Amino acid sequence: MTSPPSASTPAPALLRTDHEGITTLTLNRASARNSLSEALLDALTTAFENIAEDESVRVVILAANGPTFSAGHDLKELQAHRGDADKGRAYYTDIMNRCATMMQKIVSCPKPVIAQIQGIATAAGCQLVASCDLAIAADTAKFATPGVNIGLFCSTPMVALTRNVSRKHAMEMLLLGDMISAQKACDIGLINKAVTHDQLETASQEMAQMIASKSSLTLAMGKEAFYTQIDMELADAYHHASDVMVHNMLTHDSEEGIEAFLAKRTPLWKDR
Amino acid sequence: MTSPPSASTPAPALLRTDHEGITTLTLNRASARNSLSEALLDALTTAFENIAEDESVRVVILAANGPTFSAGHDLKELQAHRGDADKGRAYYTDIMNRCATMMQKIVSCPKPVIAQIQGIATAAGCQLVASCDLAIAADTAKFATPGVNIGLFCSTPMVALTRNVSRKHAMEMLLLGDMISAQKACDIGLINKAVTHDQLETASQEMAQMIASKSSLTLAMGKEAFYTQIDMELADAYHHASDVMVHNMLTHDSEEGIEAFLAKRTPLWKDR
Amino acid sequence: MTSPPSASTPAPALLRTDHEGITTLTLNRASARNSLSEALLDALTTAFENIAEDESVRVVILAANGPTFSAGHDLKELQAHRGDADKGRAYYTDIMNRCATMMQKIVSCPKPVIAQIQGIATAAGCQLVASCDLAIAADTAKFATPGVNIGLFCSTPMVALTRNVSRKHAMEMLLLGDMISAQKACDIGLINKAVTHDQLETASQEMAQMIASKSSLTLAMGKEAFYTQIDMELADAYHHASDVMVHNMLTHDSEEGIEAFLAKRTPLWKDR
Repeated sequence: MTSPPSASTPAPALLRTDHEGITTLTLNRASARNSLSEALLDALTTAFENIAEDESVRVVILAANGPTFSAGHDLKELQAHRGDADKGRAYYTDIMNRCATMMQKIVSCPKPVIAQIQGIATAAGCQLVASCDLAIAADTAKFATPGVNIGLFCSTPMVALTRNVSRKHAMEMLLLGDMISAQKACDIGLINKAVTHDQLETASQEMAQMIASKSSLTLAMGKEAFYTQIDMELADAYHHASDVMVHNMLTHDSEEGIEAFLAKRTPLWKDR
Repeated sequence: MTSPPSASTPAPALLRTDHEGITTLTLNRASARNSLSEALLDALTTAFENIAEDESVRVVILAANGPTFSAGHDLKELQAHRGDADKGRAYYTDIMNRCATMMQKIVSCPKPVIAQIQGIATAAGCQLVASCDLAIAADTAKFATPGVNIGLFCSTPMVALTRNVSRKHAMEMLLLGDMISAQKACDIGLINKAVTHDQLETASQEMAQMIASKSSLTLAMGKEAFYTQIDMELADAYHHASDVMVHNMLTHDSEEGIEAFLAKRTPLWKDR
Repeated sequence: MTSPPSASTPAPALLRTDHEGITTLTLNRASARNSLSEALLDALTTAFENIAEDESVRVVILAANGPTFSAGHDLKELQAHRGDADKGRAYYTDIMNRCATMMQKIVSCPKPVIAQIQGIATAAGCQLVASCDLAIAADTAKFATPGVNIGLFCSTPMVALTRNVSRKHAMEMLLLGDMISAQKACDIGLINKAVTHDQLETASQEMAQMIASKSSLTLAMGKEAFYTQIDMELADAYHHASDVMVHNMLTHDSEEGIEAFLAKRTPLWKDR
């Protein structure tokens, strides 16, 4: 058992709990609206790298403490580097790369990642939602890419956003910078589902449990193929996906899964 | 007149009828939930190859007999090859290629193809729906990519699915494996329309008749251009589409069509 | 002050007004259903080229006079060239290139462009709507790509259409040629919003004013990045967008915008 943090130890920016194959990562900078400080960015990157290699993890929930899901970059941290000799160029280059790397760790993580959004998700916070494989929100949550209001267009959040919603909807969010409701986020495809705030944790747990009941190997093969084939032309996509299917057919879990299905019994996965 | 099949002749896996430019292909393995056996895959491929060359065909309806539209691959056929010397690798490679080839015959077929879905469409059955140009379903029909439940991710169905619906919606179907309703399929763009079961055949006939009333040449040029330009960058897509427009303008049917429009009369197509 | 046009001067095909950073371009061939004649195509191209360089313009509204928004190409002009020695090939090549060039001027224009659709928008008229960054329509407006009805598939409109709406929806419009309502256009993502005819001008003005209140430099950087990254693979898109973010951070307006945000005051843009 670890000892409780002393008064002098700062609270960690990211919390991790593991329960029956479901790992929950919780953004824990509520007082700073869970903005993506350097520390939080690094903690997320490390967490997803660890999870990628961790056989005990079957699915990830990305949640947040406090009323805000995430407000995006830490503006005070950014602004503080304007006094650097290069006016911040080196720092901004580094922080943007670190942020883009972290977002892509979610995409390349072999475990499905569910965003559980209890409050406002803006800028890189909205990008986090868009970067996850699935997203469930409280119906009181709101979403925006408001960079245009502070002279800093949400260009990196846009990369994830435009891969989720259609062009007119993305442009509306990016050019106007307004908040949209959870219901609208649902309608345009940014999130999968909006539930009452009370039901949020139960709903994301149910989704996570359902995914945790599948073969981890199958999920990993499928998730990787999803993002690999999606940018290919049709014939190339089919070549790739067909190869994946053959590879998948030769695994224990597909043999067991099909056998169990034909025998009308529950399969026993070995994740290989 | 052909003689009725004797008791010893197996029913064909695929039926074809032709009526006034509308060809209806009907999956006819109702007792096996219209699963895509080798025989049915080959029959579909051959049918679409023949239709591509057949000037009498103006539009195709892909329908199915029985309560299920199609349950996808024939799992018993797949499972039977696990005992092969190579554990089935050669067989699976062959069957996946044959399936992907068939799906692409629908896309490359110069005649528009309408899926008419009267029941459940799962896995490669759902891929069939996604691969057609248009889709009308009974409001009682359901759709799923449930491979994840049997350890075999729906990687090839995913290729067609992700070219129809947005990422979060596709991921939800692929990772959870749940059935979605015809209404939800409509909302997310997998199908065009859901009607009552009683109205299904009438609705797809009406859509087919409307398409059959157009110039076949124009439809063929347009369908080919649709799939060619869609993966291009904007400037390339415009170059290609502009070339197609010029070529189209030089056909008899555009001259006749515009002339008839300006004279407020019905055009007489020559399909050239 | 310019003198009023004499009775012998033909009315210009395109009107331009400028008010507080909002430039309104109005299609002014109401008696010809605002069809895109050579003169109107050229006027639009020139207008967007001028606007691109004009620092006084912060946002553009593309509107139309009369009951029709735009009926697309001028069919009489097209038909008149069938008697050319080459049956019109050179003319059609030229006109299609000019039209595609104009549409891409909207996309490459550094100012956001809002389509304000008061009536029917068909063929290249529908393409205009799809090519704008945002679109607001009267709820009585209608949209179609009806080329298939006159033997001339809407292949170039399709380029813009398929970059706005999903495949099944695009195919339905292209293969059937039917009108869709403003509400359906909204549901499928072709436009952002449908309002009553009475509210249309107010609604698009409000949207334009909101955009005009942002930093023009930020909008220009963001709009260009939007269309540049959208065809890239994920890692390339992030590299590009991250570079844009760094560049944007080094501008006056982001420094001022973030400073103003942190101080809870209104920013003062210098557009640099």
